[in-house]
Amino acid sequence: MFLLKDIFANEKIFIDKEVEVAGWIKNSRFNNNIGFIELNDGTTFRSIQIVVESKLDNFQTISKLLLPSAIIVKGKVVKSLGGKQNFEINASEIVVEGESTDKYPLQKKRHTFEFLRTIQHLRPRANTFNAVFRVRSILSYALHKFFFERGFVYAHTPIITASDAEGAGEMFRVTNLDIDNLPRTNNGEVDFTQDFFSKPTNLTVSGQLEGEAFAMAYRNIYTFGPTFRAENSNTTRHAAEFWMIEPEIAFADLKDVIKLSEDMVKYIIKFVLENAPDEMKFFNDFIDNGLLERLNSVVNSEFKVMTYTEAIEILKSSKENFKYPVEWGVDLKTEHERYICEKIVKGPVFLTDYPKEIKAFYMRLNDDNKTVAATDMLVPGIGELIGGSQREERLEILEQKMKDSNMNIDDYSWYLDLRRFGGTKHGGYGLGFERMLMYLTGMQNIRDVLPFPRTVGLCEF
Amino acid sequence: MFLLKDIFANEKIFIDKEVEVAGWIKNSRFNNNIGFIELNDGTTFRSIQIVVESKLDNFQTISKLLLPSAIIVKGKVVKSLGGKQNFEINASEIVVEGESTDKYPLQKKRHTFEFLRTIQHLRPRANTFNAVFRVRSILSYALHKFFFERGFVYAHTPIITASDAEGAGEMFRVTNLDIDNLPRTNNGEVDFTQDFFSKPTNLTVSGQLEGEAFAMAYRNIYTFGPTFRAENSNTTRHAAEFWMIEPEIAFADLKDVIKLSEDMVKYIIKFVLENAPDEMKFFNDFIDNGLLERLNSVVNSEFKVMTYTEAIEILKSSKENFKYPVEWGVDLKTEHERYICEKIVKGPVFLTDYPKEIKAFYMRLNDDNKTVAATDMLVPGIGELIGGSQREERLEILEQKMKDSNMNIDDYSWYLDLRRFGGTKHGGYGLGFERMLMYLTGMQNIRDVLPFPRTVGLCEF
Repeated sequence: MFLLKDIFANEKIFIDKEVEVAGWIKNSRFNNNIGFIELNDGTTFRSIQIVVESKLDNFQTISKLLLPSAIIVKGKVVKSLGGKQNFEINASEIVVEGESTDKYPLQKKRHTFEFLRTIQHLRPRANTFNAVFRVRSILSYALHKFFFERGFVYAHTPIITASDAEGAGEMFRVTNLDIDNLPRTNNGEVDFTQDFFSKPTNLTVSGQLEGEAFAMAYRNIYTFGPTFRAENSNTTRHAAEFWMIEPEIAFADLKDVIKLSEDMVKYIIKFVLENAPDEMKFFNDFIDNGLLERLNSVVNSEFKVMTYTEAIEILKSSKENFKYPVEWGVDLKTEHERYICEKIVKGPVFLTDYPKEIKAFYMRLNDDNKTVAATDMLVPGIGELIGGSQREERLEILEQKMKDSNMNIDDYSWYLDLRRFGGTKHGGYGLGFERMLMYLTGMQNIRDVLPFPRTVGLCEF
Repeated sequence: MFLLKDIFANEKIFIDKEVEVAGWIKNSRFNNNIGFIELNDGTTFRSIQIVVESKLDNFQTISKLLLPSAIIVKGKVVKSLGGKQNFEINASEIVVEGESTDKYPLQKKRHTFEFLRTIQHLRPRANTFNAVFRVRSILSYALHKFFFERGFVYAHTPIITASDAEGAGEMFRVTNLDIDNLPRTNNGEVDFTQDFFSKPTNLTVSGQLEGEAFAMAYRNIYTFGPTFRAENSNTTRHAAEFWMIEPEIAFADLKDVIKLSEDMVKYIIKFVLENAPDEMKFFNDFIDNGLLERLNSVVNSEFKVMTYTEAIEILKSSKENFKYPVEWGVDLKTEHERYICEKIVKGPVFLTDYPKEIKAFYMRLNDDNKTVAATDMLVPGIGELIGGSQREERLEILEQKMKDSNMNIDDYSWYLDLRRFGGTKHGGYGLGFERMLMYLTGMQNIRDVLPFPRTVGLCEF
């Protein structure tokens, strides 16, 4: 049995050959003498035309099959005389593998994305989602390939954690206590010593700290796994469960972090454009007309670098009517980020050296004592795509910053060890996988790039 | 700056060249005139020898550095006159990047694995764990590469789920209710409508069912992600959080499932042997002397196939003194599995067609009405490595099996849809990633192949 992807990739070899293929009926039209089936087997975005002649024993049965019945076809690959396709299969035998019914909710007409979200188990069969989730797969591979080729070690950082999140966001609790009958201490508090891990545990919001431990052993590492936020944000950009990539590099400063993230973004865009040309053309045609031009321009551009302070000056002296006012010290909003990269830089840009007050405790304090060696990568059309920093490697300064953030230093003794025993300059960044995927596909809602999205009030399938 | 992996891989190019490298001191010996530092930068298992002459300004400082201080070295790569190494670096300048202290818990002496488990943030710097987690990374890549080359779509199945586990094991609850002050309904029950997802949710035990939905769209798919069990099993083979690979293939029967898993196992073993030769030699020398011979023999062997019923006959007629008695209908224990593959087959073997009573509801009922189209791959030294099956694609039989398993069919309506609308023969298997890694490295405890293991009572770092 052959896969359609192999036939499409080796057209010349297959012409005039007898083949067996299988797949689902995407479309069909029949008259009394002949029928045409558009068959898709899921291994490629393209469908193949099956020509069905009335001499087939089960011609009548086949002509009545509803979408998306599954069939197995034997026949000859022949050059196509008409139509859009170069070749088609003249069926000599068709076996019905699985029939469909008229209750199939995904009929030929166009459906709204909202409706398709209610049938997540079927929507990968719809063109848009079929393309999205294949690109998701190819993008994952591109990331692994990029880091593997550079000798990075892939670190599986833990999902369940006893850490309190370093203020990165609200966490989900994980427990196997009997919630209807919680054990209590003498003080009446919940007795977590009886929980599975003998203490309270949560779902991770980031693998960075554990990633740093690995970077002190392997120099260059990355994480790629699910992360969680229990934030009650019902927006098109927030999900409770999403995937994140967090590289961490030792003997490296902010410049190295910037260089790595720029190389990575160009590499993965290029890989996806080369390995999913049909899907990317589809997105460009039906989702976002400027997509391919924008992505190609990113691959070929040199990313600019600008300090946060410079950006604030530019924003303040602009005539733009921003919804949120700008002053040195504020966190930039998407409108500001997009203005900088779309109107000023006209391409991707790294902003650097943000005020320490608006950034995390682990970011390295600059000599000005006001800013930290942080960077955000801003891209046209979306704003922030990546956030990174050089990490504070100086033990005393890090301890002071943790105290200033009201953190319990004892809980992070292991993290401080990384500075005590052969610490090095190091840094890293976080890439939200779904945000990258939205950027690549033009899809506007994070629910439409997650196979089975988990958001406030929504956990189906 | 160069990575040591690149210097080792291109020795001839680097000889007589000036280089800059960085890394951690693994070992050093100094007299008044000269010193030798074993430097490792984490990009390769190998260390490079740095020759330090007393003419260096900071010779005294360098000579006193404690393990594992971080340094940056400039110098020339030269052929080595003595010793084990082919070449070394004559240092012309050494900059101290991060000093260590005498409190470093990982001194040169050998430590027990038990002790190293208490310093999970530092143990990747110890030889054994450095090798384990690099092989873990390479094995991950091998899996992605195998499936990508065959056009499989990588499906990120959800971690948080409202499903009740299909009886696969105890689940962890996920909640963001205030556990000290749980909201109650009028009946006094916990009011999960106020929880984040408006209903009770858990951590997934398997992505298979969602994987099946993807297989009905892409034909060939796989999952690779964390899975969870809240089982109170304090053994060397159980962890609460572990990674699993679950391929699912459409238009496929049990034979195809067997073929795919055999191809995969051979491919990934070969890839790891080729891409981690130093680490694999280390495991063979220090962890398990028969390792390389066993792995090479698996790569070159043809896996046998035997029915469960045949295996029971063999076990019953053997003179072996098993701890657990054997009768048709019992679940096989590791002692039985190992006897079959080590003593009878003398190599890997697939057992097939197990009694339906001991297997999951979704496995396809055979025509004998007594067995299901299930298979376990058994390998010498470990027993079961992979469990798979053809899935029940016939709607009525599947519904009956779910009823027999006391499942609530309404909860699985979406899963049944996969049989209603163009269902096909299909199947798949699950590979416990850590079990495969233990098999590859000879490591005996799952806690020692997980970067930050989560087991009963243990959730540190």
